[in-house]
Amino acid sequence: MTKTNPGRFFEDYRMGQVIRHAVPRTVSGGERALYHALYPARHALASSDEFARACGLKAAPLDDLIAFHVVFGKTVPDISLNAVANLGYAEGRWLRPVWPGDTIRSESEVIGLKQNSNGKTGVVWVRTRGLNQSGEAVMEYVRWVMVRKRDPEAPAPETVVPKLAEVVDAAGLVIPEGLNFSKYDFELAGESHRWGDYAIGERIDHVDGVTIEEAEHMLATRLWQNTAKVHFDATNREDGKRLIYGGHVISMARALSFNGLANAQMVAALNAGAHANPCFSGDTVRAWSEVLDKAETAAPGVGAIRLRLVATKGDSGAFVLKGEDGKYAPEVLLDLDCWALMPV
Amino acid sequence: MTKTNPGRFFEDYRMGQVIRHAVPRTVSGGERALYHALYPARHALASSDEFARACGLKAAPLDDLIAFHVVFGKTVPDISLNAVANLGYAEGRWLRPVWPGDTIRSESEVIGLKQNSNGKTGVVWVRTRGLNQSGEAVMEYVRWVMVRKRDPEAPAPETVVPKLAEVVDAAGLVIPEGLNFSKYDFELAGESHRWGDYAIGERIDHVDGVTIEEAEHMLATRLWQNTAKVHFDATNREDGKRLIYGGHVISMARALSFNGLANAQMVAALNAGAHANPCFSGDTVRAWSEVLDKAETAAPGVGAIRLRLVATKGDSGAFVLKGEDGKYAPEVLLDLDCWALMPV
Amino acid sequence: MTKTNPGRFFEDYRMGQVIRHAVPRTVSGGERALYHALYPARHALASSDEFARACGLKAAPLDDLIAFHVVFGKTVPDISLNAVANLGYAEGRWLRPVWPGDTIRSESEVIGLKQNSNGKTGVVWVRTRGLNQSGEAVMEYVRWVMVRKRDPEAPAPETVVPKLAEVVDAAGLVIPEGLNFSKYDFELAGESHRWGDYAIGERIDHVDGVTIEEAEHMLATRLWQNTAKVHFDATNREDGKRLIYGGHVISMARALSFNGLANAQMVAALNAGAHANPCFSGDTVRAWSEVLDKAETAAPGVGAIRLRLVATKGDSGAFVLKGEDGKYAPEVLLDLDCWALMPV
Repeated sequence: MTKTNPGRFFEDYRMGQVIRHAVPRTVSGGERALYHALYPARHALASSDEFARACGLKAAPLDDLIAFHVVFGKTVPDISLNAVANLGYAEGRWLRPVWPGDTIRSESEVIGLKQNSNGKTGVVWVRTRGLNQSGEAVMEYVRWVMVRKRDPEAPAPETVVPKLAEVVDAAGLVIPEGLNFSKYDFELAGESHRWGDYAIGERIDHVDGVTIEEAEHMLATRLWQNTAKVHFDATNREDGKRLIYGGHVISMARALSFNGLANAQMVAALNAGAHANPCFSGDTVRAWSEVLDKAETAAPGVGAIRLRLVATKGDSGAFVLKGEDGKYAPEVLLDLDCWALMPV
Repeated sequence: MTKTNPGRFFEDYRMGQVIRHAVPRTVSGGERALYHALYPARHALASSDEFARACGLKAAPLDDLIAFHVVFGKTVPDISLNAVANLGYAEGRWLRPVWPGDTIRSESEVIGLKQNSNGKTGVVWVRTRGLNQSGEAVMEYVRWVMVRKRDPEAPAPETVVPKLAEVVDAAGLVIPEGLNFSKYDFELAGESHRWGDYAIGERIDHVDGVTIEEAEHMLATRLWQNTAKVHFDATNREDGKRLIYGGHVISMARALSFNGLANAQMVAALNAGAHANPCFSGDTVRAWSEVLDKAETAAPGVGAIRLRLVATKGDSGAFVLKGEDGKYAPEVLLDLDCWALMPV
Repeated sequence: MTKTNPGRFFEDYRMGQVIRHAVPRTVSGGERALYHALYPARHALASSDEFARACGLKAAPLDDLIAFHVVFGKTVPDISLNAVANLGYAEGRWLRPVWPGDTIRSESEVIGLKQNSNGKTGVVWVRTRGLNQSGEAVMEYVRWVMVRKRDPEAPAPETVVPKLAEVVDAAGLVIPEGLNFSKYDFELAGESHRWGDYAIGERIDHVDGVTIEEAEHMLATRLWQNTAKVHFDATNREDGKRLIYGGHVISMARALSFNGLANAQMVAALNAGAHANPCFSGDTVRAWSEVLDKAETAAPGVGAIRLRLVATKGDSGAFVLKGEDGKYAPEVLLDLDCWALMPV
């Protein structure tokens, strides 16, 4: 009897099942320092206690994507170890900042199941929540993945496809308690453009590029205790390449977007996301954004901006997304739809 | 007169000599974060303050191997700078957890000397102790190395070969004060198998592999302030390769062993260890374990399990160790014999 | 209208202008741990709280070069984004230690301007100050860079070349409050040679070498939030090489100098510095030092030593600096002139 974790197969999931994911994690200034070393992250609110205090918070929270990666990483052994594909995200919301010293764990509820017509795989939808040491939710999101069946003969479950919001409603965004941008220091933030300066439909070329190294994406992916072997074992794929964790590209694109969106200080919601093409070591990642929507919030001086954030290994200034066939262009790595918070 | 440290040569060691190693080191959450980035480390006790508190500790200690590496690193300039070979370990015991904020230093006592028959080298045995800021021992181990003589004509010292225990007696294992596994949360730990589920003689293939990069092993080795040039200087060896610090392979194997031994939460003793073959960048490291022994302890719910932990750059599922000639197979990197603590 | 930062061009600077640089940064034990992973840094005062307390400080300060890099990194988007060359440093002084938990920001005053005769570029001199959360200066230095003009037709400003001290006067060195080397533990520091053992004119070959990897210099450079694209984007230069941040070479050389100058615990002043030749991944960096001067200080047991610290990708024992033509030899990477503090 093997003692290693074979991961769950499609027939192991049941509607309504709640999986408590293993290995809670206490985070510290160490994770923040590493995040700054791994990504060109410069958003002032997550970089400086003083800046955060001037914005009404008790200290600088950890970057919102650190929270996402820690929560996500814990789900990998239970959700995506036998995944063929990571199909999408929806209804992601950050619910509470994560502070140095917090201990984070994750749990997921199975909210949808659909066997594929080939009978060999199926799609599983889970709603994942990250919880801190007080049991308070720090974030939640829905993810769906295509998972292999262990036994192709196993009977198909009843098909349940959850009804998911295409976009998180702006009214449902959770603003961190106390956040107040009314005395915001644009000079220290590094960017003079505010919420009112961005127009729906506007596109921003974030200009800079980062060429990815094997050591860096492995350090990042391990940091989140995501140990899916495709990211680490060069003998795993026939081509000898290590597939880069999609979240590494998300963080790289978000960090690059500082140059043009430095005031989009916090990510408040993840409306949708597609890892359009795989990313490998040696690729030079660039990013561009499109303003999809804007909304007011109840917090003083805080506006919400809905952004499409695209990572590409091509020319970010060409704003390439999909071809005439409606498919992602081969150089597009990531297409993310999110809400961010910005001073009005 | 040169001011750089030439290292000690064989004739510089005297029986009973105590060497206070230089550069004490204060550790923090930063070392923990880096450890998680460098290795796929997921043992819950060293990852989560909450999990550690539920096990009777005041907080999550730093990984036991962080303690080992910090203590070991300090000895390098005095013990192994002119070493030809790292021959073995014995009687290693962890005596007290290392917490973030602790300051660690090391000292070694020379407990054995034996000149080799070629007259050019000799073997030095030292017992090394790591001490915290209160002067309390956090770990100790015996190591022996083959060291060059500066002057082949220097007289040989009296031969003293210390009598070392082949295995640390289970009764001599030091259980951290307060450790209590009676309310252990197996779900959060990530593994349902407990002490009683492991049988002596059982072998576990840890399945996963990690392909090593130069940047990663250098970051790790420097983190422990181990600056032996063979690890960093590509011009040092004729083949242009950098030899990977043996401790890097130990930590990689230990972290990989989570998959199958997630509940072996703490390493309590190092009975023996051999760096069977050198490891280089590009090697894909895998691991397998064999249960060598089991013992009860006086701490509530805590059992001890004696494990052989083998790192290999071959197929871990083949459980290869030695050939018919009694020598390590060429793909074997590490053969470690240790006691770990596990919920019964 | 572009929203990305194009950087300042020569005609954007005005004499007396004060630029508050963006993105304040709170530092922690995480930055210290990463510094130890990135460089073979072993100076005991910045490594151990206990050692630092025995030297009169409240705890171990962050390495003086961490302070420099954080302060410098913030200036890049405003000062050197369009720089053709980093021409020099002068009048650098460390004014107050940086402790874990401090929040650092930077500001620069334009103190000199000189358009080049080609009309396409000009030289800008700035005096940069790093400030902590209490507004206290932690360091200051003058740097001058050659910057492109946006519009070659823009009128030349009045030429002002600031008069800069060739060397910081020893009387002007700022000794951290409380620093006292009268009970200095040479054994724990790792070196028996004290201030009195170094002679003016003496040269020290630091012996060790480190071969540089892309992942490492990028991690380091990002850690300081220095995002100049030449360091990260392999498509930026025609030769496909990423230029290594000069500060990475400074820290590598300083860390290597431990072996021979382990007691030069703190850097107190930066008199001058030249990045003699570019450094690329694959280069093996070595270092040598020359004692340029010595001075007493008012602090108990504390002496000052003025050092030339040279980084080379050649043989450090050859002490190569310049050729007969007065130009730096091609293997020389860095020529730094600084004051350090040492036990007398």
